[in-house]
Amino acid sequence: MEAVCLPRLPRVAVCGGTHGNELSGVYLVRELMKAKKEALKDEEEEKPVSVVMVLANPKAVQKCRRYIDTDLNRCFTHANLNRALSERPPYEMIRSRNLNALLGPKGSHEAVDLVCDLHNTTANMGLCFITYSDCDWICMHIFRHLQMQMPDTPMRYIHFDIPDKESYSLDSVGKHGFAMEIGPQPHGVVRSNIYTAMKLGVQHMLDWIHFFNSGTVFEGGFVEVFTMVKNIDYPRDSETRNITAAIHPQLQDRDFCLLHPDDPLFQTFSGETLRYKGKEPLYPFFINECAYYEKGIALSLARKRHVMIPAIQVQTEQEQQADEHCFTSEEEE
Amino acid sequence: MEAVCLPRLPRVAVCGGTHGNELSGVYLVRELMKAKKEALKDEEEEKPVSVVMVLANPKAVQKCRRYIDTDLNRCFTHANLNRALSERPPYEMIRSRNLNALLGPKGSHEAVDLVCDLHNTTANMGLCFITYSDCDWICMHIFRHLQMQMPDTPMRYIHFDIPDKESYSLDSVGKHGFAMEIGPQPHGVVRSNIYTAMKLGVQHMLDWIHFFNSGTVFEGGFVEVFTMVKNIDYPRDSETRNITAAIHPQLQDRDFCLLHPDDPLFQTFSGETLRYKGKEPLYPFFINECAYYEKGIALSLARKRHVMIPAIQVQTEQEQQADEHCFTSEEEE
Repeated sequence: MEAVCLPRLPRVAVCGGTHGNELSGVYLVRELMKAKKEALKDEEEEKPVSVVMVLANPKAVQKCRRYIDTDLNRCFTHANLNRALSERPPYEMIRSRNLNALLGPKGSHEAVDLVCDLHNTTANMGLCFITYSDCDWICMHIFRHLQMQMPDTPMRYIHFDIPDKESYSLDSVGKHGFAMEIGPQPHGVVRSNIYTAMKLGVQHMLDWIHFFNSGTVFEGGFVEVFTMVKNIDYPRDSETRNITAAIHPQLQDRDFCLLHPDDPLFQTFSGETLRYKGKEPLYPFFINECAYYEKGIALSLARKRHVMIPAIQVQTEQEQQADEHCFTSEEEE
Repeated sequence: MEAVCLPRLPRVAVCGGTHGNELSGVYLVRELMKAKKEALKDEEEEKPVSVVMVLANPKAVQKCRRYIDTDLNRCFTHANLNRALSERPPYEMIRSRNLNALLGPKGSHEAVDLVCDLHNTTANMGLCFITYSDCDWICMHIFRHLQMQMPDTPMRYIHFDIPDKESYSLDSVGKHGFAMEIGPQPHGVVRSNIYTAMKLGVQHMLDWIHFFNSGTVFEGGFVEVFTMVKNIDYPRDSETRNITAAIHPQLQDRDFCLLHPDDPLFQTFSGETLRYKGKEPLYPFFINECAYYEKGIALSLARKRHVMIPAIQVQTEQEQQADEHCFTSEEEE
């Protein structure tokens, strides 16, 4: 089978601090900025790939909070980016437009080629790619590359099956994009092992982009994809809406271990076990994620599939010029 | 050796939510309040011990933050409780006075007999008693009782060697008091295993008080005491004051494992190992506690000692009356 030819990826963004208390990304972006500054001092040469590092929510980073007024990583829908601003817009609403101007505009030819947005979770999820697509060969090949380069790091590819227009996260601003989500790490804390896994993940991603742009052919194969099916909320008191149970100890930390009907799900604060009443065994993830208490999510459930991805390689300059011509013509019509 | 006779402990306070994002205590206090309400419905009898449950910082609990304006658990110094209030005092300054009125006044005869204040830490500390005294036989006997009743839970007794007058935490308001600190648990998250350990700890503490008040003699013996020696801050950038390293992976989660001179202490974000430069081996604890980044504490170090505690039992009514008479006379002089 011949390799699918895809456009070069000359512009990449690595973002951290989209949630200000997810510290691996905050410190990694700062470290990469420092390294870039020093590299620029040493050699004036332009690199073949332009990598922009972004601290996405600096005010939230400064306060070590997830957000100031509203969750930045839910602000990047088409509707949100384009609606008229209220008189006193939430800070993150303004920030999302600035980021869209810097890295997008979303959906346009000017958008950066790839956005990698760095996140942490309190759930025991290892390293996850979170995407809106199960057919973005770029993201999926990068994922496979990381799997091969970091065999000791548990790694999964999560797919939120949401139409492009409704995609809401920062990574949706790029032509390609994914969140790199790593845990477990408490928010407001940086753990060396998690930081190092993220650092390696980003380095291997940038290496892959370099290989790809240089003409390397990447063989096709299967990728295990976890497609989100539904969320489950905590049991709550009908009056106060306070939660009345925690994740069951037999489920805690067992992200991506198949949950069967009748398996323990919650343990109430009085000690009772509540069981999973679903009819289909599914894969739990984001089990006991701190930030999702307020969103009404105790865990998410996914179905696992194997997706065949083709071999890919970069387009020749001629192919790319032809493609760009098409794109421009379409836009002008 | 004869048992030391100590006054009855008729009034106990169990407090949670002193830090609003330390959720085991928040949910346990709510659960105990509910259970008490239901018990009162069932039987009108007064219990021989009055246990008051307190949600100490309800505004911070509501926002799931450590505090609103300032750390409530640093507000209970004698100076703080007695100084004139500014025109717009921090919320916690007002709250600390209300709590002191409810459970104290601190240092007075009217103060409750025991305050147990429930806390969580992101550090791998198991269940710790944190106290200001290595000779409070009540706290130390309760600690030994919990050790015996919960042999599978790692348990330590931490002693902050601070004069009474400078004691700053909520538990210092009672005649006796300690913080029950359990981890690891991310702030803003409740984990069933940690919640259950706390619930058991509180139940065994209340049982002990009941036994003690009923005349049980508790045998003396040795208690392992960790006395705080000093704190160590993260390496920081001299300009920005941002941290430049995380706890070394070989130290992370190894609370109470002896740290020797030249052992790895930090790993910088560029990958370098920094070592412990102290001359004396000491016991680290509060390693990588979330809330202490802003306090400039990466970990604390303690010296371990064995403290002999005497057998104790409750005073007879006559002894107690004689004691109270002394106390009153002294006060009246």
